[in-house]
Amino acid sequence: MSNNKIIMYDSTLRDGAQALGISFTVEDKLKIVSKLDELGIDYIEAGNPGSNPKDLEFFEKVLKLKLRTSKIIAFGSTRRANIKVEDDANIQSLLSAGTEAIAVFGKAWDFQVTDILKTTLDENFDMIYDTVKFLKEQGKTVVYDAEHFFDGYDANPEYAIETLKRAYNAGADTICLCDTKGAGLPSYIARVTKKVREEVDCAIGIHCHNDNGMAVAGSISAVEAGAVQIQGTINGFGERCGNANLCTIIPNLQLRMGYQCIPSDNMAYLTPTARFVSEVANIIHDERAPFVGSCAFAHKAGMHTDAVNKNSFAYEMVNPEVVGNQRIILMSEVAGRSAVMNIINKVDSTITKDSPETKKIIERLKELEYEGYQYEGAESSFELVIRKMLGKYKSYFELKEFKVIVNEPTINSVNSSAMIKIVVGEQTEITAAEGEGPVNALDKALRKALERFYPQIAEMKLTDYKVRVLDSNFATASKVRVLIESTDGQEVWTTVGVSTDIIEASWRALVDSVEHKLMK
Amino acid sequence: MSNNKIIMYDSTLRDGAQALGISFTVEDKLKIVSKLDELGIDYIEAGNPGSNPKDLEFFEKVLKLKLRTSKIIAFGSTRRANIKVEDDANIQSLLSAGTEAIAVFGKAWDFQVTDILKTTLDENFDMIYDTVKFLKEQGKTVVYDAEHFFDGYDANPEYAIETLKRAYNAGADTICLCDTKGAGLPSYIARVTKKVREEVDCAIGIHCHNDNGMAVAGSISAVEAGAVQIQGTINGFGERCGNANLCTIIPNLQLRMGYQCIPSDNMAYLTPTARFVSEVANIIHDERAPFVGSCAFAHKAGMHTDAVNKNSFAYEMVNPEVVGNQRIILMSEVAGRSAVMNIINKVDSTITKDSPETKKIIERLKELEYEGYQYEGAESSFELVIRKMLGKYKSYFELKEFKVIVNEPTINSVNSSAMIKIVVGEQTEITAAEGEGPVNALDKALRKALERFYPQIAEMKLTDYKVRVLDSNFATASKVRVLIESTDGQEVWTTVGVSTDIIEASWRALVDSVEHKLMK
Repeated sequence: MSNNKIIMYDSTLRDGAQALGISFTVEDKLKIVSKLDELGIDYIEAGNPGSNPKDLEFFEKVLKLKLRTSKIIAFGSTRRANIKVEDDANIQSLLSAGTEAIAVFGKAWDFQVTDILKTTLDENFDMIYDTVKFLKEQGKTVVYDAEHFFDGYDANPEYAIETLKRAYNAGADTICLCDTKGAGLPSYIARVTKKVREEVDCAIGIHCHNDNGMAVAGSISAVEAGAVQIQGTINGFGERCGNANLCTIIPNLQLRMGYQCIPSDNMAYLTPTARFVSEVANIIHDERAPFVGSCAFAHKAGMHTDAVNKNSFAYEMVNPEVVGNQRIILMSEVAGRSAVMNIINKVDSTITKDSPETKKIIERLKELEYEGYQYEGAESSFELVIRKMLGKYKSYFELKEFKVIVNEPTINSVNSSAMIKIVVGEQTEITAAEGEGPVNALDKALRKALERFYPQIAEMKLTDYKVRVLDSNFATASKVRVLIESTDGQEVWTTVGVSTDIIEASWRALVDSVEHKLMK
Repeated sequence: MSNNKIIMYDSTLRDGAQALGISFTVEDKLKIVSKLDELGIDYIEAGNPGSNPKDLEFFEKVLKLKLRTSKIIAFGSTRRANIKVEDDANIQSLLSAGTEAIAVFGKAWDFQVTDILKTTLDENFDMIYDTVKFLKEQGKTVVYDAEHFFDGYDANPEYAIETLKRAYNAGADTICLCDTKGAGLPSYIARVTKKVREEVDCAIGIHCHNDNGMAVAGSISAVEAGAVQIQGTINGFGERCGNANLCTIIPNLQLRMGYQCIPSDNMAYLTPTARFVSEVANIIHDERAPFVGSCAFAHKAGMHTDAVNKNSFAYEMVNPEVVGNQRIILMSEVAGRSAVMNIINKVDSTITKDSPETKKIIERLKELEYEGYQYEGAESSFELVIRKMLGKYKSYFELKEFKVIVNEPTINSVNSSAMIKIVVGEQTEITAAEGEGPVNALDKALRKALERFYPQIAEMKLTDYKVRVLDSNFATASKVRVLIESTDGQEVWTTVGVSTDIIEASWRALVDSVEHKLMK
């Protein structure tokens, strides 16, 4: 490890999931792990196996993924007071997760020990020591999180430091100083981190919350004072005002300050990863976010724009392409040319980066993204766009008409029905179906109509259906983006549709999904 | 002026208006000036009278307002190269604004002088000196903004410092160091500010941009190094990633660090002011913003919530009421009894933790959460559940029937329409509306039907609409949860509806939202 390496420790799946409105499924978490591994994050704190059965299922599955870089961390508390560490059910759950590395948090603030845990200051020392020592004996890499460290140091510096020493003496590999309340001034964090470094000869980490709006600066100030690990989350997701935002920290440290956070070649994955995580979390991406928001390199004032075109270093900290972003006001064409080439070449392997078709396709992609389409994770729809542009598209049916009706109160306990009329070759099929809601009724009607012509339609089913409101300023008149995931048991594919009308958006994604299946 | 006073200099109306999507009318600007004056901001940089006639009209009107605290600043550039300052039309416009105080910006970066302005380094010295001196001779208070100062200092420290000395020698009242590119590390800003203080015996200000995510920390680090004026904007509005956010800076400095920014009695205006400016700018308020966002004091995890109720200082930097915000205890199965009690007591203050009603309500909450409801951030809907259970619910209308129809292809370019029939008291209203999609059509029809009976419905509007698919394994037959956020300009509330049918789920959230408004 080079001596300017800073270890990136992501807690999007654990502390990030505490954010208002975020709730990840096991599948969501697995997808995010793969993306973080691709980005080159060192540690992924993925959950608390003692807290619920969903997390246990996740750990079973995640350890089967072949990760290149990332190590998975199970997270839990030090043992409870007055019991043996090996008798603590939560500690046993932590071990049962089967990860190489474990993070345990303990109390550093005397007040929390006596008033919240309601135990003695000495027992807390033993809880820390016993837990870390036991986990080390089991062969684990151990990160010790000193919860409320900065408040604790403020109240009783000797006690706070002594808790760290116990963790260190028990063999902790890293000791992480947590600003749990998010109140630490960067200058204070730097001063205290320096003091800790003098007192405890262990690798030091930093974990900041953003309640004072300075989580990024606090983390960086700790690195300036000698910390070597940063705990944070993608997009700064986390409870209250969020955690330290790794998407801001990584480019600051690596592109501006000479540290190494992730492999240099991966830096261009930063913006796509940030957007992907927003998408999976179903949170509107913060377009004003440094480095990874679409406004980050958007220039408005006329004089500036000219100057930017001539001398971008005069108005931009880093080149937007370096972080996978771009210098336009349009919704970002995140994929970049090389990602687009992969899909183009699936359709026609003779087309190169410099072919005129490539330029046209990228222009069209920009237009579609401006309209609200997003093809990340919905490559099947983008492939259909390319096929249409290259004349390699075959139509399998033509829609003549559909009509969807929703009734309240329900009629014979059905509230939604759909009628559909399609043409295949010379033949017309008209049919109808009832469903759980209008989209389900339409989906069933379309498949019923097609089955007569294409019996293989019966092999496919829809496995996921996601709705994202785009310009929520317009409330119920907003544009929506619908993502549909389908499978035929052999392959999984995702398609996308955008419209101000959710039925229309769903219809577009549905048609792409069916066409993808028929093309096979 | 007490020696811990930091001068608050707001540029929401000038630099803030550079943000993507923000465009203030003259009336908007006047309203914001009044609010900033109420809050106790010292200087309001309100526009560039040379740049457009709208700004001139604004200055005429604003000087007629009776402001208690705030002084209005007209903003412009130093004189152009190679002309006399009194012949410069922009300088004349600045004077014509009629303000007591004027800010002029000049170049501090040698590269910008030679390559962007295309003049000599010496002529730039004279442009600064002549302009400041001339404005002082006209009796103005003069703030000199050293544009790109930190980049300039990095490139050529002697030249950068010398530009400041020229402004000082000409009589500038304050010299403001601008981090125009938003790249300055807080530790660097502190170091350079200290250096400037040693070289130039003038009151120093700081102006940060947020491209590195550290504009707040940078501003505060400058204060720690001796700066006495901060330029920023409400909510951090500004181009690219925004300007330093005064709503974050003020409570940090005043409530945590012992400085005086605004009169103490005005601190509770902070959140209302922040929301007001978002509203006027027509930008969705950032609910994750420190101090002034609705998530800033929102607590989720069960263990935390209990601890917060007992010892709020353990988890909160400041008391939310102090900044005009409030503590939200999020509803969730894990949140436990004490969280629910807060809402129960809003409806009926006589009910205690041990009342039989409390047990019943918690049972019902669990059932509803199992069905897919989530009341985190949708307390208005939960309050309605409680009212119904406690017999404190009043029905404002009864739905007899609705019917929603979606057509493809569209008929006369409309694809969605809704018919609705409601009863209020003895009267029946039947009406219909067309919309952008079925939910929008239904929303419009309901409000149209109600307006006859409840004209105050016109005051409310929906500001956000979110859809979350719950059990996505069932694809288009999945359950969906719809969250609707509404406002009447004074309050923001969120309601929730769950169903397998998106229309039905939206309907439930819509009804709760309307009932919340009518209950007020």
